[in-house]
Amino acid sequence: MSHAHKLLDGRSIAAGIRETVSKDVEALKKEGWPIKLVSISIGDVDASALYVRNQQRAAEKVGIEFEARNYQSDISRDELVGIIQGLNTDPRVTGIIIQRPTPKHLTERRLQRTVHPLKDVEGMHPSNIGDIVYNDLKMGPCTAVAAVELLKATGVNLEGLEVTVIGHSAIVGKPIAFLLMAQGATVTVCHHETRNIAMHSRSADAVFVAVGKPGLVTANMLKPGAVLIDIGINQIDGPDGPKVVGDADFDSCSEVAGWITPVPGGVGPVTVAMLLRNAVTAARLQRDHYATEFATRTSA
Amino acid sequence: MSHAHKLLDGRSIAAGIRETVSKDVEALKKEGWPIKLVSISIGDVDASALYVRNQQRAAEKVGIEFEARNYQSDISRDELVGIIQGLNTDPRVTGIIIQRPTPKHLTERRLQRTVHPLKDVEGMHPSNIGDIVYNDLKMGPCTAVAAVELLKATGVNLEGLEVTVIGHSAIVGKPIAFLLMAQGATVTVCHHETRNIAMHSRSADAVFVAVGKPGLVTANMLKPGAVLIDIGINQIDGPDGPKVVGDADFDSCSEVAGWITPVPGGVGPVTVAMLLRNAVTAARLQRDHYATEFATRTSA
Repeated sequence: MSHAHKLLDGRSIAAGIRETVSKDVEALKKEGWPIKLVSISIGDVDASALYVRNQQRAAEKVGIEFEARNYQSDISRDELVGIIQGLNTDPRVTGIIIQRPTPKHLTERRLQRTVHPLKDVEGMHPSNIGDIVYNDLKMGPCTAVAAVELLKATGVNLEGLEVTVIGHSAIVGKPIAFLLMAQGATVTVCHHETRNIAMHSRSADAVFVAVGKPGLVTANMLKPGAVLIDIGINQIDGPDGPKVVGDADFDSCSEVAGWITPVPGGVGPVTVAMLLRNAVTAARLQRDHYATEFATRTSA
Repeated sequence: MSHAHKLLDGRSIAAGIRETVSKDVEALKKEGWPIKLVSISIGDVDASALYVRNQQRAAEKVGIEFEARNYQSDISRDELVGIIQGLNTDPRVTGIIIQRPTPKHLTERRLQRTVHPLKDVEGMHPSNIGDIVYNDLKMGPCTAVAAVELLKATGVNLEGLEVTVIGHSAIVGKPIAFLLMAQGATVTVCHHETRNIAMHSRSADAVFVAVGKPGLVTANMLKPGAVLIDIGINQIDGPDGPKVVGDADFDSCSEVAGWITPVPGGVGPVTVAMLLRNAVTAARLQRDHYATEFATRTSA
């Protein structure tokens, strides 16, 4: 780790974001808009329990109330939809989080679109995704927005920047692509059917990788000085037991890259901070919606 | 024009689509779902009148009722929103088209999102755009879907295809990009801030251009044999008076390209056919929605 000067430290970036969020939460509370998130886990939650506790701790630290609910895995779709609709219409609830994984009979995406777009703090509702395409970011998918935030933290000028995104998922790769296009970057999106990923990544000023394959990006795939944002989270067996790594071979890539995110400690912490920022955005959008709806009309 | 074998003839492709649409319209009518579109033009409509008449003629030819409405340019936002909401809830109306341009006080995008997603036959509602990102195409923006249809008409395999899209608008360039990604293509989106468009276009198997600049794409920007889909529509002064051209220099590009769309007669006719196909999709989605909502529940 002799490249500390190149490291994009997600933890310190996240701390800065949380500080702003904390002030915003306090100000909204004074206006009568305290923020509360409701997290919904379904069935055996061992896989996500740690993640939920993490969110809860982060939320409470910035003054956001966090209610972690758990439902039995045999809950019916109708019942769960009814619960979500109840939360949509509850003025005390600012945002709703559907924890993954969900049991197979409850299609995750259909649940996600039951959440009202103004309470969609995970930024996954199709209409929130569509708004990003229209360069009108309200609440974006947390991981995608976090990854772009890390690139911005380098201070690089995004206008005309050549970027390669490896991975084209609907909530990570593609939103990263159009968040960057909105800022003037030229973006290529590669994936498992791309003939020659290295050809694209080697000519890029910045590379994002979100595939879920350890060691996918190696030093010879990077242009010297490029920014590498590693979104992968993979658990592998190391010599000292299991450890978490990204999609890039960190040791070799850090010799070539100008900036690089560590895993863990890169995109991850910023992702949680983005969830909190989305909660603030949700509260503001709901406040503005309320103000519009209840405004005294001075003309017909 | 010695390259007729290379030409992607939009008119004949559109004719094929209209034939299928015509049968679908007839079948839906028999089921009790006749299709009707309502077109809304606002103010001085000289600019769009020809376009609307074109849509009307094409719709009526395939058995779709088409009501062209025109409102005064000083209509208030509230009044127009009320009219659109009335059309949303009118079971006799399948789809609503907001003709452009609209007067400045009526923000086009805000009107567009007043149209219910299931009646959004232009495919411009953020939630319909977002669904494309989720690889769940329902009604896509007509021009973007038409452009992709023309590429498919060449018979080229989209998996692993290297594509460069020049132009990154929310309803043309970007949707083309994710429609193609969904099919396995590797896509680069270039625009006015791209440092070197030719570098990207020259390595592409297919190039889409939608910028609005005549002569933007020249032969030396293409790889021999590449497919060129020209979405530009520009009126220029030719030696024999005004004429319509695309964004590519057709004469030089047709010497290098493997396939090329003419302008006019390329993407344009297919775009209108896509509007009709979207109307069929809208009718089916509304029918399915109705069926779900009114189904007899056999269990609680």
